[in-house]
Amino acid sequence: MLLLKSLRGEEIPRFPVWLMRQAGRYMPQYRELREKEKDFLSFCKNVELATRVSLLPLELLGVDALIIFSDILVPLEPMGVRVEFAEGEGPRLFWEGKVESLKKIDFSQTAFVGEIVAKLKALAKDLPVIGFCGAPFTLMAYMVEGGSSKDFRKTKRFLWEEGEKAQRLMSLLTENLVEYLKGQVRAGADVVQVFDSWALHLPYEEFQTYAQTHLRRLFEELKKFSSVPLVYFYRGSGSFLRALEDLPVDVLSVDWTVDIKSVMRESSKALQGNLDPALLYCSEEVLVEKVRDFLKGLPRRTLYVFNLGHGLMPDMDLQKVRLLVDTVKSHSLSC
Amino acid sequence: MLLLKSLRGEEIPRFPVWLMRQAGRYMPQYRELREKEKDFLSFCKNVELATRVSLLPLELLGVDALIIFSDILVPLEPMGVRVEFAEGEGPRLFWEGKVESLKKIDFSQTAFVGEIVAKLKALAKDLPVIGFCGAPFTLMAYMVEGGSSKDFRKTKRFLWEEGEKAQRLMSLLTENLVEYLKGQVRAGADVVQVFDSWALHLPYEEFQTYAQTHLRRLFEELKKFSSVPLVYFYRGSGSFLRALEDLPVDVLSVDWTVDIKSVMRESSKALQGNLDPALLYCSEEVLVEKVRDFLKGLPRRTLYVFNLGHGLMPDMDLQKVRLLVDTVKSHSLSC
Repeated sequence: MLLLKSLRGEEIPRFPVWLMRQAGRYMPQYRELREKEKDFLSFCKNVELATRVSLLPLELLGVDALIIFSDILVPLEPMGVRVEFAEGEGPRLFWEGKVESLKKIDFSQTAFVGEIVAKLKALAKDLPVIGFCGAPFTLMAYMVEGGSSKDFRKTKRFLWEEGEKAQRLMSLLTENLVEYLKGQVRAGADVVQVFDSWALHLPYEEFQTYAQTHLRRLFEELKKFSSVPLVYFYRGSGSFLRALEDLPVDVLSVDWTVDIKSVMRESSKALQGNLDPALLYCSEEVLVEKVRDFLKGLPRRTLYVFNLGHGLMPDMDLQKVRLLVDTVKSHSLSC
Repeated sequence: MLLLKSLRGEEIPRFPVWLMRQAGRYMPQYRELREKEKDFLSFCKNVELATRVSLLPLELLGVDALIIFSDILVPLEPMGVRVEFAEGEGPRLFWEGKVESLKKIDFSQTAFVGEIVAKLKALAKDLPVIGFCGAPFTLMAYMVEGGSSKDFRKTKRFLWEEGEKAQRLMSLLTENLVEYLKGQVRAGADVVQVFDSWALHLPYEEFQTYAQTHLRRLFEELKKFSSVPLVYFYRGSGSFLRALEDLPVDVLSVDWTVDIKSVMRESSKALQGNLDPALLYCSEEVLVEKVRDFLKGLPRRTLYVFNLGHGLMPDMDLQKVRLLVDTVKSHSLSC
């Protein structure tokens, strides 16, 4: 498994590559499968369909890892949060606002996720399967805002005015996420990634006090449980890099605001990502040239996994995504 | 002038304070004056009204500096770019797309800005007057997108596919902005601030190649011309801080993603801003407490100007903004 070799620092002939949201709306084949189950959460719970979708990037792109098709809001439902996805809109979340009435979950309540992992594992040939969850802060932000937000002012106000309650909510989320990830590892996940979409909105100190405290616990618990590599992806990566260096996480998945060359020289952590996905809106010539330049410029020949700095977008072109993957795969590290 | 003293590193009894967008829609008095001239650009060009609006924060907040009321898109019009502000929407920009057909401007074409500076200077008593412009990259991004954007994909594509043309456009913008700021300094501005709203969207390398190259020239030209302090404000400040350390700018105005305590210890530059404006959505008690904690925690007693990490928003409460200013002013540095 190329990806695991790279993360162990072993010599590799080329960089491993997978892409965030690699199975998604930009694929006609994905849209076709979605026709069979239009309700998004039901689609995520349909083991058969979710597994088939997760496999599409193997067939259509030839990536080096498969991530289970799911949503970061999935573990909130059994906690007692109602989650709705309206067509063409962001998610909406409803709950009573009382931490005490939220439930501690065990993995059997999201057994379908384990089944997807196991099924994918059986079908993925030699490819590693990536499990995932949302970061405690990002999930709390969704819950407090009741959906997405431009400035997360409700969440911030919650932290500042009811800090103790916020910590309790994040503790519960963290506990539940630990169970949720352990379940995925038990089911066969080779790597787990934590997605932090909204931490970038936090002030530096609040990032440390809230987001990081619980991330640390999450990663520590998983480290005790298993040796699978742990990946942390967060948007706005440039800002909080320094704070993350001593987190017990193996891989930082960073966006394009990061000076990856310096970080590779200074950090002992493995890195993932960095390339700006907007390159996929360029001509094929420019795309190939920029990807090659990027790969040539990297000061490391291992402990790096190619990915973009963010997920693929619905209006991206499958042929270009395929070209991107091919370009990365054709970049030899043995010369 | 407290603000200039602080920026010279002289001993000061308390931190100076002003706020970005301190004269704006959150003030009933501003909205009243806007009634007299509903077209936004015409309002900016009306010396009488723009000056009266610029003075409101002196009367209503008691701030330590006045910034001229204007818009960063003002200097684009005489270059040959049509700028429209529709009610309740962002700006829209129209131009032919040819760099050769854009004009080099001289300050007489925006003489009204000089008049506002001079008039404000005469009425501002002992307060410093701040002139400003948009950063070359931010103005180019507005021009290429034809307005604002979520991901600035057109601008990025322009950089990647037509890099040479992008550099020519930014060179012309920089030349014009140098003239524009020199004119404001000649008219009496005591400080000038460059606003970079969109550079945060750039990958790290492109930030250096495009944004920073031209910022450097802009600041160098102004340094040759005058000794007024130069301030650079950019959103997403956490990401590119390291790249900015050797820019010939006196003050970095940063947002809340910056770990200001570390930066104050490590950087020789003056700093401005940092506090999250979302605090203004909190209760008065929490607001006052957080502002006091913030000020107490700063490791510097000079070379700092209080401001928020971003401009005030239309739905903010004037009484709370006033309370914020009062809280900063009551924090004594002499104890």
